[in-house]
Amino acid sequence: MSDAFIKQYLMTAGPTPLPPSVSQVMAEPILYHRAPAFIEVYARALDGLRQVFQTQNDVLAFAASGSGAMESAVANLTRPGEPALVASCGKFGERWGELCDAYGAQTVRLDVEWGSKVEPAELDRVLGANPQVSLVFTTLSETSTGVVNDIRSLTEVAHEHDALIVVDAVSGLGAVPIPQDEWGVDVVVGGSQKALMCPPGLGFASPSERALARAAEDGGGRYYFDWHRTAAGQRKDPPDSPFTPAVSLFVALDVALGMIHDEGLDQVHARHALLGSAARQAVKALELELFGPEDEGANVVTAIKMPDGVEGAKVPKLMRDRFGVTIAGGQGRLKGKIVRIAHCGYFGAFDIITSIAALEMSLRELGHELELGAGVGAAQRVFSEAGVPVGAPA
Amino acid sequence: MSDAFIKQYLMTAGPTPLPPSVSQVMAEPILYHRAPAFIEVYARALDGLRQVFQTQNDVLAFAASGSGAMESAVANLTRPGEPALVASCGKFGERWGELCDAYGAQTVRLDVEWGSKVEPAELDRVLGANPQVSLVFTTLSETSTGVVNDIRSLTEVAHEHDALIVVDAVSGLGAVPIPQDEWGVDVVVGGSQKALMCPPGLGFASPSERALARAAEDGGGRYYFDWHRTAAGQRKDPPDSPFTPAVSLFVALDVALGMIHDEGLDQVHARHALLGSAARQAVKALELELFGPEDEGANVVTAIKMPDGVEGAKVPKLMRDRFGVTIAGGQGRLKGKIVRIAHCGYFGAFDIITSIAALEMSLRELGHELELGAGVGAAQRVFSEAGVPVGAPA
Repeated sequence: MSDAFIKQYLMTAGPTPLPPSVSQVMAEPILYHRAPAFIEVYARALDGLRQVFQTQNDVLAFAASGSGAMESAVANLTRPGEPALVASCGKFGERWGELCDAYGAQTVRLDVEWGSKVEPAELDRVLGANPQVSLVFTTLSETSTGVVNDIRSLTEVAHEHDALIVVDAVSGLGAVPIPQDEWGVDVVVGGSQKALMCPPGLGFASPSERALARAAEDGGGRYYFDWHRTAAGQRKDPPDSPFTPAVSLFVALDVALGMIHDEGLDQVHARHALLGSAARQAVKALELELFGPEDEGANVVTAIKMPDGVEGAKVPKLMRDRFGVTIAGGQGRLKGKIVRIAHCGYFGAFDIITSIAALEMSLRELGHELELGAGVGAAQRVFSEAGVPVGAPA
Repeated sequence: MSDAFIKQYLMTAGPTPLPPSVSQVMAEPILYHRAPAFIEVYARALDGLRQVFQTQNDVLAFAASGSGAMESAVANLTRPGEPALVASCGKFGERWGELCDAYGAQTVRLDVEWGSKVEPAELDRVLGANPQVSLVFTTLSETSTGVVNDIRSLTEVAHEHDALIVVDAVSGLGAVPIPQDEWGVDVVVGGSQKALMCPPGLGFASPSERALARAAEDGGGRYYFDWHRTAAGQRKDPPDSPFTPAVSLFVALDVALGMIHDEGLDQVHARHALLGSAARQAVKALELELFGPEDEGANVVTAIKMPDGVEGAKVPKLMRDRFGVTIAGGQGRLKGKIVRIAHCGYFGAFDIITSIAALEMSLRELGHELELGAGVGAAQRVFSEAGVPVGAPA
């Protein structure tokens, strides 16, 4: 601990804070993965995942980080020497490119400036110029910048060019809508440690039948992440995992999915929208600059440019060391340039207020003039005027 | 739960029972993986792993089941079309073969009858007949049969033929000795959910410099399981993971490794030897047949042939449903033919006594005549005569 006497507030976009009922269920005696008690949990969690992914597809679950589930998509869908398009607007988009390169694909890159969205028209242009591309990899919520892409439109464009689209929704799923079946997204990739309110260690991929059929064409170069192996297990009655599942994480997931179900997915999305709106209003009231376009849909992470004269990297450090509030700074090329206020998962109104209050105090201590409480007040107004319950689920 | 009113006793070889201090630490608020509090845990756990692996190599940690760590070895070391020898004596040995096939290796199989060991002389013969082989994959403790292979001798033979040896020690590591550096084992693969007394979800691989150098020759076809990517992160100061680590599992691992350190690795091995000996004496006293050769070193799982006239698959089911004692039956071709009493990880004398007592009662209920208490008494004698503390660590 940096200081055991400072009460700690975890305000990051992954790992995100866990509801007490989720963390506490992991303290129960562990279950044997072939015992009825676990099989019941496993089956219910797999079904609950389908509801959050809003799909009839199997949601394949891997003991892995979200990047492992991303790799499953690349390993199952790309072929050495064949083209794959990566539409990237940040660090996690770039990861798709690195994965495609590692698997020997002929990677075509549509790189958008960090902080901007992937424009559907631009995807259309690049796919038009590369008619041999039959796979598009992109990102729902780009955690490194806060940008949320318009997956519905990007999917339409990909399909017009007869390409499959694979979406990294690790940080967006459960925070912003991505109704897979309604939008026809071919593969959605998720992870446990973001809006699903669980510890890291589970990765998910929900391939459509079309994507699964493509995966079946060549089974080489993969085993653990082979979709058909895991799908065959999960389709058994009762479902079975080809490898020992991460039992304690599944038990946690089951509880968290139950909470999402009880709150209702639409309300979960509405809560994230309200939290995102409050964070943005606070930033504006503080006369700070949002990183990237102001966007009604950017409800996972709010990225804030650090003002001139403030050494950006010091801000999250001071917030943590002095006030016990852990937020994320910038990653990669944004190191020291932005900070990121998360509202992804088990977050309520007063988490935003805490993050903004600590940000105000830290910026002031680092010599940036601002009115203490100005950002907090703006966030309060958003919550008060919403006139709806704004807490995280009980 | 099969029956909430029956007190449950988990007696399987993975997931194994967790010490209360391990399961309870997971109920604490989750840590941000880049915060000092977690980095301290992460660094200490990586160092503790080195002590259990008895190596100076980096022990690379993956959010994955043990099979994922096995895949890392195949993905990093095999090359399409090049030969790899798999020396197998059970289900997990066969997994090496499936992995090598999936990666396009020219798999040479040395298949030993289930319940027997891989004989060093036989490995010598097969390597002599296949001089182009430069990689051997085998198993320390074959969980499906209880057999523990003589890795020291197998390593010597592999090295005489100038081949690297990769050992699946998922279920053996921490139960039976495998001093990696002393024996010169090139790669040891482990998992969290066996004798390391943690939940499933972490896989480990400890490649030597020679193995790492071979992996570097070709970086294609892997990303998440690429050894060099994870090694580069873990070698930073402070160590860093290229992907979000499974934070809650690492926190658990840190506690479990502390317990192993406090008990002392030699004493941990001695405890497993005593537990294994007690289980074998109980089986003999019950005039049941051990599956495979009686072996002083088979101290992870005791496999027992089910007697004629007893439907083997009913035994674990009855033990669980009627007595709340969960043990494993046979897997694959041994389904219904054996049951397996585990003594792997957080097990003490009275866990063996519980398993044997429930086995006696269940066999009797299924019509097999035996003297209740005969097996229990034999186990008690082993423990009493040992004259040393025989409990699991406090």
